[in-house]
Amino acid sequence: MNLTLINKVNQPSDLKKLSIEEMEQLAAEIRTLLLKKVSQTGGHVGPNLGVVELTLAFHYVFDSPIDKIVWDVSHQSYSHKIVTGRKDAWLVEEQYKAVTGYTEPEESPHDFFTVGHTSTSVSLAVGMAKARDIKKQTGNIVAVLGDGSLSGGLALEGLNNAAELDSNLIVVLNDNEMSIAENYGGMYRNLAELRKNNGHASTNLFTALGMDYQYVEEGNSVAEMIVAFEAVKNSSRPIVLHIHTEKGHGYIPAVANKERFHWQMPFDLETGESKHTGSGESYDSVIIDVLDKKIKDEKQPIVAITAAIPGLFGLKELQKLHPEHYIDVGIAEQHSITYAAGLAKSGAKPIVFHSSTFLQRGYDQLSHDLGINDLPAVIIIKGGKISGGDPTHQGSFDISYITSIPNIIYLAPTSKEEVRSMLTWAIEQKEHPVAIRIPERGFVSAPIKEETFHPLEWHVEKQGKKVAVLATGGFLSLGEKTVENLKEHGIEATLINPRSFTYFESDLLNELQKNHQVVVTLEDGSLDGGYGEKISRYYGCSDMKVLNFGALKRFNHHQTMEELFTEFRLLPELITEDVLEALN
Amino acid sequence: MNLTLINKVNQPSDLKKLSIEEMEQLAAEIRTLLLKKVSQTGGHVGPNLGVVELTLAFHYVFDSPIDKIVWDVSHQSYSHKIVTGRKDAWLVEEQYKAVTGYTEPEESPHDFFTVGHTSTSVSLAVGMAKARDIKKQTGNIVAVLGDGSLSGGLALEGLNNAAELDSNLIVVLNDNEMSIAENYGGMYRNLAELRKNNGHASTNLFTALGMDYQYVEEGNSVAEMIVAFEAVKNSSRPIVLHIHTEKGHGYIPAVANKERFHWQMPFDLETGESKHTGSGESYDSVIIDVLDKKIKDEKQPIVAITAAIPGLFGLKELQKLHPEHYIDVGIAEQHSITYAAGLAKSGAKPIVFHSSTFLQRGYDQLSHDLGINDLPAVIIIKGGKISGGDPTHQGSFDISYITSIPNIIYLAPTSKEEVRSMLTWAIEQKEHPVAIRIPERGFVSAPIKEETFHPLEWHVEKQGKKVAVLATGGFLSLGEKTVENLKEHGIEATLINPRSFTYFESDLLNELQKNHQVVVTLEDGSLDGGYGEKISRYYGCSDMKVLNFGALKRFNHHQTMEELFTEFRLLPELITEDVLEALN
Repeated sequence: MNLTLINKVNQPSDLKKLSIEEMEQLAAEIRTLLLKKVSQTGGHVGPNLGVVELTLAFHYVFDSPIDKIVWDVSHQSYSHKIVTGRKDAWLVEEQYKAVTGYTEPEESPHDFFTVGHTSTSVSLAVGMAKARDIKKQTGNIVAVLGDGSLSGGLALEGLNNAAELDSNLIVVLNDNEMSIAENYGGMYRNLAELRKNNGHASTNLFTALGMDYQYVEEGNSVAEMIVAFEAVKNSSRPIVLHIHTEKGHGYIPAVANKERFHWQMPFDLETGESKHTGSGESYDSVIIDVLDKKIKDEKQPIVAITAAIPGLFGLKELQKLHPEHYIDVGIAEQHSITYAAGLAKSGAKPIVFHSSTFLQRGYDQLSHDLGINDLPAVIIIKGGKISGGDPTHQGSFDISYITSIPNIIYLAPTSKEEVRSMLTWAIEQKEHPVAIRIPERGFVSAPIKEETFHPLEWHVEKQGKKVAVLATGGFLSLGEKTVENLKEHGIEATLINPRSFTYFESDLLNELQKNHQVVVTLEDGSLDGGYGEKISRYYGCSDMKVLNFGALKRFNHHQTMEELFTEFRLLPELITEDVLEALN
Repeated sequence: MNLTLINKVNQPSDLKKLSIEEMEQLAAEIRTLLLKKVSQTGGHVGPNLGVVELTLAFHYVFDSPIDKIVWDVSHQSYSHKIVTGRKDAWLVEEQYKAVTGYTEPEESPHDFFTVGHTSTSVSLAVGMAKARDIKKQTGNIVAVLGDGSLSGGLALEGLNNAAELDSNLIVVLNDNEMSIAENYGGMYRNLAELRKNNGHASTNLFTALGMDYQYVEEGNSVAEMIVAFEAVKNSSRPIVLHIHTEKGHGYIPAVANKERFHWQMPFDLETGESKHTGSGESYDSVIIDVLDKKIKDEKQPIVAITAAIPGLFGLKELQKLHPEHYIDVGIAEQHSITYAAGLAKSGAKPIVFHSSTFLQRGYDQLSHDLGINDLPAVIIIKGGKISGGDPTHQGSFDISYITSIPNIIYLAPTSKEEVRSMLTWAIEQKEHPVAIRIPERGFVSAPIKEETFHPLEWHVEKQGKKVAVLATGGFLSLGEKTVENLKEHGIEATLINPRSFTYFESDLLNELQKNHQVVVTLEDGSLDGGYGEKISRYYGCSDMKVLNFGALKRFNHHQTMEELFTEFRLLPELITEDVLEALN
């Protein structure tokens, strides 16, 4: 690997000593380096390959961090990290984990925000520009926004407000013609027309929002990007610089397969083939099987909805089977929920697929549109779990934010059989919104007698006494192990699967008071506002002792699950310790 | 009052028997009727006066409820209610309260959603249109959206997705050149250009989003609106019908003073003067006084931010004093928070003013942008309280949704002195985001020794034993009355003002265990996920009994506070009853 030039670049100012030809060579070196690491570690491939030239040109023309760049999502900031003093995290295998996959102010003065959700960069940049102006400072503020993120309402709110600035702000619209998957929405016809006619079209979304506008066709040319940035540097008006790039540029498999290479597990560099292969049956396949049957029986017109993350749920399979029953609304989490409310009101059956962390953006819509109107949409949630990775992608909060909303039933299946039964029930019922939290601690099969099954009944897995463990969702197996561990200490504990976070079987709770002294709650999420606290409140005035186990209220930063589970005492032997103390 | 024609209209089909001249006369009659009631009861004035003709034309041209109209916010649906069988709620004084101020499916088959937040109508209508299509039905779906609501990201997400429909959807953009207050944002320059040139402009936001487009200048002409609706009826493509109306049309004081008459307390019909006058000192004036001083001392560049509701906080006063330190971002709650994160990161001091119910829309931004980045913005929240009115405007949920987010401090002042001290402290500290919940149960002055004051210390208002009452925010006086009531039963209870919903003084909580048996928590909000549950969890393994008082988890519908407080046992004598039972 020829890394002649990378070796010379330790900070952005080093770029300014290079010729344009050397900059193009550096881009090639960076691309090689990016691919080498990401093929081993996994990560965002396409987004990073697409913006190498943009990044180099930015740091060549501007003076970071006096001039500030705000990356949207920031999953495309690898090149930026390489040229701002963090290249060892790509050069030195032992340091691969020294930097995160997103911008991180703790790593570098060239990073301003820890971000990971889409569509935030313009609003953040408008705030920075306003602060600069009110402090009578100078400098350029540059926001980078992908075309996929542009459909997110926050980005559009930001652009509309940006246009009110009477000062410098440069929004780089990095148009690679892709969201994570394909783009969806009318605005993409306008972008296509603009790309086709070198920035000219019958209408222009950006000028319609009040922004100035320029177009750059060759977004993967360092020379062109330098010219473009020079032209807008120190502009005294907010402007959108619409640049055309290629997602995955410079790596044939990533260009050929843009969606798969958006984020990729470790892969074979030569062929592009993933080193991980699908493992047969999964919760995804169970869900798609249920939907396939329900669509075919034609009792209700089912509409499966994703907001730009079909891959997380294997929904392309459903799209193939029933294209007219599948819709990707693009990055538009709010719309996905309100749209589902409209569908449900008119007698269709929306099934909305979300990740725990991105669904946060639909909180008001869950409450105001689905909750108040009590409409029978179904929401499937993945990634709801205590997370140790990026603070921006934690799944600890959904139990709290969903269970605080009246009328929504939040189901907690523990196995494929429960996923199947609960989804079937959720589709068939027409009374309430139902959210289903797909368990995250491995694929579990646990045959149950379907005929006796109702998701709103607690299931006593094991009848015991003295101690009762309420183990929810993916933590049922932790409950099982805890009960085994307690047995070693002479306690025959009761184990209960409550099957939901919102239904409380008060007869059973009261019954427990007869011969139980301690109730333990287990939840794969944050304790504050979560499930366990509701049980604590229930028993507040009784003699029952209650121990809530879950995550402490904080954003974790790249800790292992082992560290976290030890700290949170989410291990059978630690839970047993606490139970024994409570019994004393 | 001449009501010849209104008397003939009992359902939409009756309109179809009228001539255009009679329709114009009917519009005048409706306007008279609207003004008579709203001047007595208070309500939305300007929005309703502006859409009388639009409403009549809709019901003349279309066949509701087969053709469906979805009103955004639905605060402008009074005329719609009058012509869809609910006119007695305006004609008969005793029935003034028979209908709500928003669309309400329980009232009429012509209403589809209970709504009250902005920018939802397009997404709801797209969902209805998709359901119609997948069910192979026919009929028009019409969404009405105000120009003010257009800046809300949800509306833009909805339009972008609407353009993907290959079937009928008519979005009426009701452009009265106003939000609740003035419009802010670059898109309003485009709307102005379109209005000026009868729908022609160098660019067009709606076609840029992929929608077809038509313009109607005379939105307050029944005849013109009928022609316009006839032209788009049964259109097979999604289209925006941009109509120009006048907010407050037909009532001089409302036209002259559009912001004040957006929503108005009872007023003198002849002069337009409000029957209520300001009452001098208020929490608003205290807040503005603090900001005025802090802006003048120039230690931090303060930026006060509202998302279109300056009137709720009297912010026009601040705008007059310090225009460069005030910004209205328009209806864009998400942006307001992310923008504040950008400001705080760059060393400015954002103070964002929100209502409890609308801030819901910024939940993800509170978490992802402010929370994770732990930036010292200040958020002032009003309307955080148990509410009995419209389900769409309840303030019961903010304690839960804010306290579930790590890093945000949520302060609970109980008096003007605490509002002052806490706001001052929040501005001066540079460590964390701080939200302040302005108390809602009357203006309280309670001098405290400022020099000993720190908002993150619990304040023991009265030291007692056996029972401790933790009374938060606006419920401190309920706590005081409860303690008095307990005294009548021989209990000298401890009264504590915890001053925040997020800080738990564990030394004090532990200390209480020595000579207290019951802890009572009082919160002016929903119990689920709220403050009290955290105290219950804390004492879960102790002998302390805990009683949580607050609202049950539900959306209330037009109940009185008396009814609710009795049901929720939020009265001193009922709390005492429960305490006595717990002590037994």
